[in-house]
Amino acid sequence: MTAEIISIGNELLNGKTVNTNATYIAQQLYKIGVAISWIQTIGDDAEAIRQALKLALQRADVVLVTGGLGPTHDDITKKTVAEFFNKRLVFREDLLEKVRERFARRGIKMPEINRNQALVPEDVRLMDNPVGTALGMIFEKEGKFTFVMPGVPREMQAMLEDSVIPFLRERCQECRVEVNLFRTTGIPESSIYERIEKDLPDFSSYEIAFLPKFTGVDVRVIRRGRDITDQEKFERFTRMLYEKIGNFIYTTEDKELEEVVGELLREQQKTISVAESCTGGLVQDKITDVPGSSDYFMGGMVTYSNEAKMKFLGVKDESLRQYGAVSEVVAKEMAAGVRQAVGTDIAVSTTGIAGPTGATPTKPVGLVYVGLASADRVMARKFLFGNDRRINKERAAQAALDLVRRYLQGLPLE
Amino acid sequence: MTAEIISIGNELLNGKTVNTNATYIAQQLYKIGVAISWIQTIGDDAEAIRQALKLALQRADVVLVTGGLGPTHDDITKKTVAEFFNKRLVFREDLLEKVRERFARRGIKMPEINRNQALVPEDVRLMDNPVGTALGMIFEKEGKFTFVMPGVPREMQAMLEDSVIPFLRERCQECRVEVNLFRTTGIPESSIYERIEKDLPDFSSYEIAFLPKFTGVDVRVIRRGRDITDQEKFERFTRMLYEKIGNFIYTTEDKELEEVVGELLREQQKTISVAESCTGGLVQDKITDVPGSSDYFMGGMVTYSNEAKMKFLGVKDESLRQYGAVSEVVAKEMAAGVRQAVGTDIAVSTTGIAGPTGATPTKPVGLVYVGLASADRVMARKFLFGNDRRINKERAAQAALDLVRRYLQGLPLE
Repeated sequence: MTAEIISIGNELLNGKTVNTNATYIAQQLYKIGVAISWIQTIGDDAEAIRQALKLALQRADVVLVTGGLGPTHDDITKKTVAEFFNKRLVFREDLLEKVRERFARRGIKMPEINRNQALVPEDVRLMDNPVGTALGMIFEKEGKFTFVMPGVPREMQAMLEDSVIPFLRERCQECRVEVNLFRTTGIPESSIYERIEKDLPDFSSYEIAFLPKFTGVDVRVIRRGRDITDQEKFERFTRMLYEKIGNFIYTTEDKELEEVVGELLREQQKTISVAESCTGGLVQDKITDVPGSSDYFMGGMVTYSNEAKMKFLGVKDESLRQYGAVSEVVAKEMAAGVRQAVGTDIAVSTTGIAGPTGATPTKPVGLVYVGLASADRVMARKFLFGNDRRINKERAAQAALDLVRRYLQGLPLE
Repeated sequence: MTAEIISIGNELLNGKTVNTNATYIAQQLYKIGVAISWIQTIGDDAEAIRQALKLALQRADVVLVTGGLGPTHDDITKKTVAEFFNKRLVFREDLLEKVRERFARRGIKMPEINRNQALVPEDVRLMDNPVGTALGMIFEKEGKFTFVMPGVPREMQAMLEDSVIPFLRERCQECRVEVNLFRTTGIPESSIYERIEKDLPDFSSYEIAFLPKFTGVDVRVIRRGRDITDQEKFERFTRMLYEKIGNFIYTTEDKELEEVVGELLREQQKTISVAESCTGGLVQDKITDVPGSSDYFMGGMVTYSNEAKMKFLGVKDESLRQYGAVSEVVAKEMAAGVRQAVGTDIAVSTTGIAGPTGATPTKPVGLVYVGLASADRVMARKFLFGNDRRINKERAAQAALDLVRRYLQGLPLE
């Protein structure tokens, strides 16, 4: 089964927006064994849409279209694609009611222009949009399927996962693949490779990829054919991986580190508080991205100034003067201080130089200390990240969460 | 002059690599007024390359090809494109010498495989590669130009700037464009449209697009030809826009709201603190994304539990019991409390139900109060967002920052 993507939107052609949608779709389809053979990126232009559809349907079995489903005058995808497939647009009162309800729930009267969203092609399977008002559509012609999705990444992603992938999965039996993910943090791609290099020839039929992000490296393993049923071989592989890099693996599921930390806290019935300087709220933002995190996260501080560090966390004036705010001593005092102030089982802290300014002769941009405090110990760890402010914040926040994970799992902290 | 891009590389089709090259090229060409009308992304596949070239040359005046110029076996672009244009590949000793020198300068003996780089199509204009060994090529056929560049972003970018852009500039005088951005928040796309709909016919030669994100809608205006020099008309347009939706426009530059707020605080020499509940640290994370924010941001709290709200912010037990944590009264007490505790000129607070859990019969998921406290007033505003936890956090954080902006600019807060 081959597939093509058609990405629609003037913003993709004038350089305003990077086409991450196409990459996302390619990744997700790759996982179920559907290969993308062509991506066409075009503007909100009816003639281009018609031409692109014609070409794609000549070449591929499946076409995925994104973009141009909004309610305004420049969103012409629905109308154009419906015409292409000779489908009349009909107005559906029941769909309008749903859109109205959606706005009503937000306490807003529906703008009239949104009536458009209830205009849908006749006799076409619709796809729900869990995070927006534009519905998706599946057109079928001569055994080939054309999926039309919104261009807003979150809406497209939800629709792809909820509707497109299950639909394709049912229709493509032969292309089964098994994908496993080992998510790591705190170890670079090259070190993972060096540690497992000698063992890789035993698993040459596995497709093993290292997917590096600033917050860690995902090791993705794809198995096909008889490798799917050879459970013993996969157990051997997993054992090898855990022997070599086990402490760095925080999950084998499609989860973020903050979710893993949340589950550990919940299991162990422990509460947590946070004191942030260089991460500026990002650690707590991540922790609270997890639904139900209020069960174990009580609160915390963002202490950017020295005064705030002293007043709210009990950091000693003496320590700030002798070692500076970016130091092991202050990281420890921050963690111990917030733990006591908020009254939690454990606490974590960050202090560092996010950049681009703030460096001193002895403290470069990227220097970060992460502190941890519990009933039985207070410690801190030093990190040296790079030059980019946002990336430094991301990496420091991930390091702080990982220190908590390691503590809760009884792993070495240094 | 219209142009198409052909991006070549298997890594672009399996989701490994985001096609940032196409976006970069589009941006750069846009600046000199050359519009991209189509982007084709294909694999390292000779048949696909031939088809893509044929289609592109039928449709456009200029074709820009990237990728597949490396020295290894899967890099087939040079060979395939040369064949397509009926050009013989010839081996050039002088070019080999250059490649050898390049390696020698790095103290490395040239790997034999790099001999390939001295194999170039006959009678074709070559483009220097200031940062790598693969040369670029310009093929001409029936007055149309095809530029072939490497896929390594740094190499492509240098070649585009040094060779392609100057080449095209000479050949396209007429096609300049002017782009303006009006970034709004707090008003949906459809309402903007309704408010300015009647005025749009006066500006029908402008290309006006609404680019919606969860945190606001960007209104982008593109002017061409004589519209560029007609300053009076653009002033009329700007005046109209500010009359209709001016309070929602936070910048006309390429800036985020937190940067605008930061500049206002700096200008007015005011300091800020933050108390967050439902946004969980995101407001402070955004504020501290701005380099130098420590000049005006002193610190704040993330008070997830009622205890933390009482202890650190002085929220009254009475208020929590009578109105609940998600209420106008508590939002006000949080803002006033953090302002006093941290000792800043102004303070902002958030409390709400991010979801998916936490709703009550009278308080739905998505209900958020944003509070603001200054020396002269304490107020709060109610919002009703949607069902997605992360989106609710993003929208609430943006609403909090926008309340600060409106306060600092002396605009109505409700």
